[in-house]
Amino acid sequence: MTSDLDRTPVTVVGLGPMGLALAAALLERGHPLTVWNRTPEKADELVGKGARRAATVAEAASASPLTIMCLKDYDTMYAVFDAAGDALRGRVLVNLNSGTPNEARAAVDWADERGVAYLDGAIMVQPPLVGHPGSVFLYSGSQDVFDRHRATLASLGDPRYLGADPGLAVLYNTALLDLMYAATNGFLHASALVASAGVPAATFAGLALDWFLPTVVQASLAEQAPALDAGHYPGDLGTLEMNRNALEHITLTSREQGVHDDQPRLMQGIAERAIAEGHGDRNYLAVFEVFKKANAARA
Amino acid sequence: MTSDLDRTPVTVVGLGPMGLALAAALLERGHPLTVWNRTPEKADELVGKGARRAATVAEAASASPLTIMCLKDYDTMYAVFDAAGDALRGRVLVNLNSGTPNEARAAVDWADERGVAYLDGAIMVQPPLVGHPGSVFLYSGSQDVFDRHRATLASLGDPRYLGADPGLAVLYNTALLDLMYAATNGFLHASALVASAGVPAATFAGLALDWFLPTVVQASLAEQAPALDAGHYPGDLGTLEMNRNALEHITLTSREQGVHDDQPRLMQGIAERAIAEGHGDRNYLAVFEVFKKANAARA
Ligand SMILES: [Ca+2]
Ligand SMILES: [Ca+2]
Repeated sequence: MTSDLDRTPVTVVGLGPMGLALAAALLERGHPLTVWNRTPEKADELVGKGARRAATVAEAASASPLTIMCLKDYDTMYAVFDAAGDALRGRVLVNLNSGTPNEARAAVDWADERGVAYLDGAIMVQPPLVGHPGSVFLYSGSQDVFDRHRATLASLGDPRYLGADPGLAVLYNTALLDLMYAATNGFLHASALVASAGVPAATFAGLALDWFLPTVVQASLAEQAPALDAGHYPGDLGTLEMNRNALEHITLTSREQGVHDDQPRLMQGIAERAIAEGHGDRNYLAVFEVFKKANAARA
Repeated sequence: MTSDLDRTPVTVVGLGPMGLALAAALLERGHPLTVWNRTPEKADELVGKGARRAATVAEAASASPLTIMCLKDYDTMYAVFDAAGDALRGRVLVNLNSGTPNEARAAVDWADERGVAYLDGAIMVQPPLVGHPGSVFLYSGSQDVFDRHRATLASLGDPRYLGADPGLAVLYNTALLDLMYAATNGFLHASALVASAGVPAATFAGLALDWFLPTVVQASLAEQAPALDAGHYPGDLGTLEMNRNALEHITLTSREQGVHDDQPRLMQGIAERAIAEGHGDRNYLAVFEVFKKANAARA
C-alpha cells in the first residue's frame, strides 16, 4: 500500500530488529530511504530493496529532512549524533528508543542547542507488526514537528500525539507496559490457582479472558476512571476492608493449593496500607492514593 | 420476566445484601419463596412482596425441595443446618457462600452423611446485578443436582457448571477475583505513573482500557493460553531477560516520578526468580512455572 501523497525522504539510524522493521515499512510505502548502522551489513537486505546505505551518520542525516532513530538509549543517541557534527542542524529527529520522561525532556534541550527539531516517540508493537493496521505509535513534544510529519509517521503505524511535554510518550509507554505485566501476572497467577485443581489455562481463559476481564473488570474500570481524577471513592457497594479480606482469602487459598503467594500477599499489603491511611470505608480504587505517593524512604 | 416452565418452590437462607438479591430475583420470576434469617426483620420487604417467613431453619428447609443459602462461611452453614435436625434430608442444598476448595469438598462429605444432595456455587456479580442478563453464577459438584435445578438457578443468573470437583466453583471464583485485583492494580499503578505528569486517569483510560488491554494484552494472552498448558515458552519474540530489564525500567521510572514502586519491584523479583530457575531465554509466560509452585518455606 504506497501513498501517492507523501514520499518524504527519510533516514533511519539504528538497525536492530525494530529499526529494520521501521525501515522496511517506510520502503514499502515508497519513501526514499537512507540507512545507517554501526554494523553496516545489517542494511544488506534493505539495500537490496532500494535503500541507500550511508557510510557515516553525518552522511545519513544529511540525506533526508527527517531522521528516525531507534538506538539502545539516550546516551547512545548523544554519542552517535554528536559524532556527526552539524549534520542534523535545521532538520528533524524523531527518537523512538525508550527511556525515562526526564531523559526525554533533557533530549529536547540537547536538540535545541544543536538547532534540531525533535520529537520523542514510543512504539507499542513488536517489530513484525510495524506498518500493519492497529499498530500504535505514541509521540510527544513539538506539535509542529508532529503535524508536519504526521503522514510520514503514519507509514509506521497509527500515530498518536499525547502533548507538548516530551516525556509523555515514554511515560505512557512505561505505564502501558506496567499495566500489561500486571494484567499478565494476574492471569498467570489465577491460571496457576485453577491449574492446582487440574483445570487447563486454555479452559480458564474461556471464562477469564473472553468474559470476565472485558465485561466485568475493564468495563468497571473505564466507568470509574473519572472518579479517580476526582478522588471520589464511595464505599456503598463494597469497602476496602472487605477487599482486604478477599485478598487475604486469595493468599490463603494460594497457600492451601500449593501456589506461590507473594503476589496476592503484596496486594493484601497495599490494601492494608490504604486502610492505615484512612481509606478503609472507601472503595478499592482508593489504592490509587497509595500508588501516587513515593515509598517511605528506604535505608 | 417470569418463566411459565419452572416454578419450583425455593427456600433462601441468609438475607445479607446478596441473600436479599437472590430472594428478590426468585420472587420476581414467580417461584414460591420461603426465607429465613437470624434477624427476621430482614425479610420484611420480601414478605410484603409475597415471600413466606419461616420461624426456624427447620421450617424453612422443609418448605421447599431446594434450599439456596448465602451465609458468612462454611462453619456458619454447619451450625445453622445442624441445628435444623433432619429437615434437609432428601432435599437439595445449594451453597453460594465463599470459602476454599477444601472447605467445599468437606461440605460434600457433611451433606452426604446427612442424606442431602449438595451443589457448591459462587456468585460473580454484585447484588444489584443478580437476576440481570450477563450475571454469571459458577457451580461445581453433583452434575445431577445441577441438571435437575438448572432452570431454577437460571432465575439468578447465567449458570455455568464447571465440573464434578465441588471445589471448582470457589476456586474459579478466587482465581477470577485474583485476576480482577491484579488487573485493577495494574491500571491504578499505571494511572499513578501518568498522573505524575498531570495526565488524568480518564484520558489514560482511553488508550489503556479502550485499546491496549483488550486489543494487545487480552488477545495475546488468549492466543497463548494453550502454550501454558504445554509448558511451551519460545523466546524468539522476546525473552524473560528482556522483560526483567523492562520491569526494572518501570521500577526506576516509578521512583523517578515519585510513584510507589512496591508493585513493579515485586514483578521484577518474580521475573528474576524465573530467570534463576533457568527460564531466562524463554518468554515471559514462563513466570507461570514460578506461580505454580509454593513459596519456599518461611520461618
Ligand atoms: Ca523515545
Ligand atoms: Ca460456595
